[in-house]
Amino acid sequence: MPTHRQAERTRERIVEATYQGILEYGIAGATTKRIAKLAGCSEALLYKHFSGKEELFLAVILEHMPALAPSLRRLQVSTGQGDLLANVTEFARAAIAFYTSSAPIGSGIIGDPALLATFRGMLAGQDVGPHLPIKVLASILRAERNGGRLAPEADCDALASLLMGACYHRGHMTHFVELPQPPEDYARAIVRALLGPITR
Amino acid sequence: MPTHRQAERTRERIVEATYQGILEYGIAGATTKRIAKLAGCSEALLYKHFSGKEELFLAVILEHMPALAPSLRRLQVSTGQGDLLANVTEFARAAIAFYTSSAPIGSGIIGDPALLATFRGMLAGQDVGPHLPIKVLASILRAERNGGRLAPEADCDALASLLMGACYHRGHMTHFVELPQPPEDYARAIVRALLGPITR
Repeated sequence: MPTHRQAERTRERIVEATYQGILEYGIAGATTKRIAKLAGCSEALLYKHFSGKEELFLAVILEHMPALAPSLRRLQVSTGQGDLLANVTEFARAAIAFYTSSAPIGSGIIGDPALLATFRGMLAGQDVGPHLPIKVLASILRAERNGGRLAPEADCDALASLLMGACYHRGHMTHFVELPQPPEDYARAIVRALLGPITR
Repeated sequence: MPTHRQAERTRERIVEATYQGILEYGIAGATTKRIAKLAGCSEALLYKHFSGKEELFLAVILEHMPALAPSLRRLQVSTGQGDLLANVTEFARAAIAFYTSSAPIGSGIIGDPALLATFRGMLAGQDVGPHLPIKVLASILRAERNGGRLAPEADCDALASLLMGACYHRGHMTHFVELPQPPEDYARAIVRALLGPITR
């Protein structure tokens, strides 16, 4: 029997292979057969770790991307400290990187009606989804507002939607066209336009 | 020989069939064979009107969606007139509708590496792309700023990116999860949060 550590390594290898498979073949072409081959394991072993493509894709998004969660945590920890606009700008840069690299997966799922239906059910069952990072960001902005660093009338849910949306959109657009503005400059500009007028 | 009007009708039927094909089969499954069948014409006739899938998909986005361009024109025409926040909110509602219905196409393209490569080349050659509506929106906001309805220091490019990004993101998220806030309320909230503090 494989040890816990061995099983974990196999799982990681499969997630990595899934990511490679998506980059190479797209969502539609990244079959469990191809993923198993890239991971150097049998399809049977793959199915011991994951129920299917949908669960694999969710694992890639949650575990294999430049990671939105740690950036949100860093922003949360910095509440009330340092320069608010600089803190949020750093987060926006991380969010752009995350959405740029997760776009081929998230998009591939939206673009495949059958896969999307299964994926929707899985998200609803686990109470996760693309709206959650916005909620976390909104709660962080709310803490800053309550701490007096944002205007008391600030609508933190709307602000979080605007910021996250601009990062998501930028991450997608870079796949279609060459954008002249570097992501760092873009991040700085949107954060200043959004929060500058209401920063206290 | 078909008249100009007949040829135009055939073209429209093919674009409509492409849209139906994408909804039913996804981008990957919407083959020219299936599209021709849905349009009730031969593949040969389809290829007389379009060079291939990429051109068909672009036609669907540009001609068959709830249309971003007319909404942008309406907003442009209303420059300096009526209530600025109300005008922009109406535009945001239209943008959300556009991005919601174009998501399966745009996403399907990002999710398919081979298709994306061809599509990128086509966009670059025609100098079009998903960044253009942001530029138009920015120019409208700039006119409002120059007319004194927005604060003189407003960064209109960044504001346009934020607004369009939030509409795009919302349009995509609705495919993954049930969002409790109606799109009208969402549109009103983001426009107020974005422009409220800098409206004069």
